[in-house]
Amino acid sequence: MCALVDEIREQPAVLERMLGQQEAIREIARHVRRAGVQYVMVAARGTSDNAGQYGKYVLGAANGLPVALAAPSLYTLYESPPRLDGALVLGISQSGASPDICAVIEDARRQGAPTVVLTNAPDSPLARTAEHVVDLGAGPEKSVAATKTYTAELLALALLSAHLADDAARLEEARAVPEAVARVLDLGDEVARRAERYRYMPDCVVVGRGYNYATALEIALKIKELTYVGANPYSAADFRHGPIAVVGRGFPVLLVAPQGRAYGDVAALLGELCERQAETIVLSDQEEALAGACTPLRLPGGVPEWLSPIVAVVPGQLLAYHLALAKGLDPERPRGLHKVTETR
Amino acid sequence: MCALVDEIREQPAVLERMLGQQEAIREIARHVRRAGVQYVMVAARGTSDNAGQYGKYVLGAANGLPVALAAPSLYTLYESPPRLDGALVLGISQSGASPDICAVIEDARRQGAPTVVLTNAPDSPLARTAEHVVDLGAGPEKSVAATKTYTAELLALALLSAHLADDAARLEEARAVPEAVARVLDLGDEVARRAERYRYMPDCVVVGRGYNYATALEIALKIKELTYVGANPYSAADFRHGPIAVVGRGFPVLLVAPQGRAYGDVAALLGELCERQAETIVLSDQEEALAGACTPLRLPGGVPEWLSPIVAVVPGQLLAYHLALAKGLDPERPRGLHKVTETR
Repeated sequence: MCALVDEIREQPAVLERMLGQQEAIREIARHVRRAGVQYVMVAARGTSDNAGQYGKYVLGAANGLPVALAAPSLYTLYESPPRLDGALVLGISQSGASPDICAVIEDARRQGAPTVVLTNAPDSPLARTAEHVVDLGAGPEKSVAATKTYTAELLALALLSAHLADDAARLEEARAVPEAVARVLDLGDEVARRAERYRYMPDCVVVGRGYNYATALEIALKIKELTYVGANPYSAADFRHGPIAVVGRGFPVLLVAPQGRAYGDVAALLGELCERQAETIVLSDQEEALAGACTPLRLPGGVPEWLSPIVAVVPGQLLAYHLALAKGLDPERPRGLHKVTETR
Repeated sequence: MCALVDEIREQPAVLERMLGQQEAIREIARHVRRAGVQYVMVAARGTSDNAGQYGKYVLGAANGLPVALAAPSLYTLYESPPRLDGALVLGISQSGASPDICAVIEDARRQGAPTVVLTNAPDSPLARTAEHVVDLGAGPEKSVAATKTYTAELLALALLSAHLADDAARLEEARAVPEAVARVLDLGDEVARRAERYRYMPDCVVVGRGYNYATALEIALKIKELTYVGANPYSAADFRHGPIAVVGRGFPVLLVAPQGRAYGDVAALLGELCERQAETIVLSDQEEALAGACTPLRLPGGVPEWLSPIVAVVPGQLLAYHLALAKGLDPERPRGLHKVTETR
């Protein structure tokens, strides 16, 4: 029995439950709109910080809200919390137990800023501190590597954004997410077979752009946590600004390239990487990108770009898991990690 | 003749010139205070984005200003610029030529937000677009890897912060920076000798926290650009949240650990890394941290934490340079990089 693979497979059910929380999220959106916020400050660490990166794009593009990622050490180390006039403060934490994220939300309450927390622990100190709570409802997550709470966080952010914009078309699109995630799980056997090829890969790069920059960050984190391979995440734009220098013949690069506005740029980068004879692993629903890949992994078609990160991360979770197995590692017990990290 | 090492050595003179621009920066600070901004939106890529991370801490801790790093693709790909009520928009770009950074500043002007640009090209399109310009005055930077423009950007941000706070004590502290950088350059021979040891290092991690998270990001970028070694940067807090799993016996970790409020946390991490028998390279002015290191690199003492990133990055620049030489690479011509990357 492996909790991790079970938790990966539970994702369609978890996402379906999240869709059932629309009423609570709509109510929170109503409060936030009434507060008239000018920007959003996200407080999160690790996997949840990657969800915050998704929030930066979805709240930016659909709601016109700039998103700042909080620097928790301004609270805990420097004791100089920034002023929060005009801010909505959004805490994201699976466990709700991280003292530094709590410190940000506590200070926001003191300053009178509206606060929303997304957490899988609605009885946690973090949840008790916040004004509004979205329960991720993902059920117990036993594995140290977070998977189902990440996709639940993304869908919660997507729904919050759609309700803030009161956008019925987007809310309708979100209803199809659990089924798309169920379809992408069918890649499991294919990923298991392909993972063998990367058994001895010393390090790698993971690239996305726009909405799927978050996906690159999260896939790289799963690879590092589960396989101890140094995986460097980049936006396609930043990658060209310097780090592409590391890519020579055979260097492994995973590209997140679903259809949408960021596709063209990631596809162009794929072309450059092919010229450098890199080893490319491509997650895409586009024939052209899949045809150019050393290892093509086909995403289900028809997923709108703004929701694609919820689907595209799943083959990355599976790849990290199967690569851990191929390397003879125990995906349940990554060395020296604990489920709750108490950062101060 | 090597332009890169010359540019590294020019830094004290460049920083001295930046101190000479106080009057212009004070005037900009006066305008910004009058505009009554609630938060700062930074638009930058690559090395300048790392300077923006420094800005997040210095403007947060000393001025109470939350800092958001812009997502330029919201402008260029998604054509949905966020609303900027209450924002100061700060563009940072050595070349002033990146179309996506220009797009952010152009939109900010349209929206009527105050705009400040830090650039080494005061005649560039970016500088012409902005309301206020700080000329980095670093002289021509011929090397593809930016060094002197980075430290000039940091000092410009430090001075802007101190003038915004009208803090005479801090302005006085800043006057000592060029001399501290001159002292740290004396490490050159030591770094050249130590670099040999890392000739065959396959990858590494670079860790900082608080103000020096930016230093970790920038040193990792220099290592990647100049040596093609996959260098992963982390805040000490995030590193414990998962990525520490990659560290086994002999794994190289560079820690940026000058005295200050972040020191205790980085020193504690150094202890954990020693237990894992990691290979530690430590930049510090603290005896305890230097004593625990496989490779200790002594920073000059007496530099206040808020200014330490300007000093602490320099041994990292030197290490990347000497490691490139040890590997037989040409630090002037990193493969496939151009000085100006035109990201759209």
